[in-house]
Amino acid sequence: MGKYEYKMQRLFLRHVLAEGARIEADRSQANYLMNVLRMKDGDYLLVFNGNHGEWLAKISSGSRRDCALQVMERTREQTEHNDLIYLFAPLKHARLDYMVQKAVEMGVGSLQPVMTQHTQSSRINLERMEANVIEAAEQCGILSIPEVIGPQSLKDVLAEWPQMHPDRRLLFCDEAEGTHNPLLTLAQMKEAGPQPLAVIVGPEGGFSDDERSHLRGLDFVTAIPLGPRILRADTAAVAALTIIQATVGDWR
Amino acid sequence: MGKYEYKMQRLFLRHVLAEGARIEADRSQANYLMNVLRMKDGDYLLVFNGNHGEWLAKISSGSRRDCALQVMERTREQTEHNDLIYLFAPLKHARLDYMVQKAVEMGVGSLQPVMTQHTQSSRINLERMEANVIEAAEQCGILSIPEVIGPQSLKDVLAEWPQMHPDRRLLFCDEAEGTHNPLLTLAQMKEAGPQPLAVIVGPEGGFSDDERSHLRGLDFVTAIPLGPRILRADTAAVAALTIIQATVGDWR
Repeated sequence: MGKYEYKMQRLFLRHVLAEGARIEADRSQANYLMNVLRMKDGDYLLVFNGNHGEWLAKISSGSRRDCALQVMERTREQTEHNDLIYLFAPLKHARLDYMVQKAVEMGVGSLQPVMTQHTQSSRINLERMEANVIEAAEQCGILSIPEVIGPQSLKDVLAEWPQMHPDRRLLFCDEAEGTHNPLLTLAQMKEAGPQPLAVIVGPEGGFSDDERSHLRGLDFVTAIPLGPRILRADTAAVAALTIIQATVGDWR
Repeated sequence: MGKYEYKMQRLFLRHVLAEGARIEADRSQANYLMNVLRMKDGDYLLVFNGNHGEWLAKISSGSRRDCALQVMERTREQTEHNDLIYLFAPLKHARLDYMVQKAVEMGVGSLQPVMTQHTQSSRINLERMEANVIEAAEQCGILSIPEVIGPQSLKDVLAEWPQMHPDRRLLFCDEAEGTHNPLLTLAQMKEAGPQPLAVIVGPEGGFSDDERSHLRGLDFVTAIPLGPRILRADTAAVAALTIIQATVGDWR
């Protein structure tokens, strides 16, 4: 992706996109484009809808309250939906926003909040999570919008796993793993051939001892360590996704 | 490190620590312990000074404005100072705080802001950076406090490198690298034997073309890619430090 595209404003739309289409931005999009970004008639931006690739568009007839976009030409083909499922204990407020944005940047395909014994935040605002997913996709040039799944208890997720996700391996980031390095385990997985993956990152206080031993006893779970230091949950998320994408993921 | 230690409050002090020492907390520490954390006489915490390991301490004679600590016994030996130098284009406000905290969690030994052509933030508050370094060390159980170095221009850093850092290799996170995967390059470095390392992460807009070609032309620089997606600068920082620590760093 060129610098040019990186610097252009990118906007997610729920409309069908095709050459020559004229799209009325909704009230909040118009406000964002015309008042926050101070764009003007004739300015260019990139638009995408998660299904039809990325398109160059031009602002036609913008005012302070309304704005229409003229779709010009396709700049990138639609990319495939990412397959990696990211399960995480929700954090509070800004740290959750941040964690969701980072997971999208790192190429997860779906995000599922999981309630654990030490989870501090029990109210999950799925709309806010979706808004963070879209913002990260807009900023980082991701064309396929990851799915946000409603919260479930860890117990239920694990009980239903064999039915819901046959053949999918769950990587469990375990602070208390004996070794510090995940590379050997991941290299062995890579040699065994491709398989669908999920990763689970615990809450700030870590998993409880019961949860850890339950996870470690399940045959679809593989524990991976993340180095010698304690990481905060949002750091552990980026570290885990980096090491997984670099070894058995899409950093080809 | 056990769960017990993880959950206990940990406080950085500038005092000499030894068994039986009595330490008067300064005004802001006393406020933090007594009013923010609502600790009471007889409560335990862990203290460290970056040089003498970690100690169990007890609050003796705390009031709302003053607080004395009784140092009990050493809980951990001092760890070695990390060697990895982390160079980064400063970001704005909260994102910089965040990036500094994350770098400490990931085990850097020193942090140096570097001004590049696209760097957006020119005023660097070194005191605030140091406060963030200490906060991250307190939260994540790191006993050796990374050093904060004053800002320098990228040009000067590179010109002085051979004198300042003989034999130290600079890993350059290059978005525009042809491949996506850094593992092969890092595996080759590992085979060549241990050497001191530094890593540089660019600003939100990336390095300029001039800067990129300058960096790529230097014999102490090795470019590494970070996957197929554009990462925000703070995400790139965690991703780069993860992959470096896991391959040629201290995730043994």
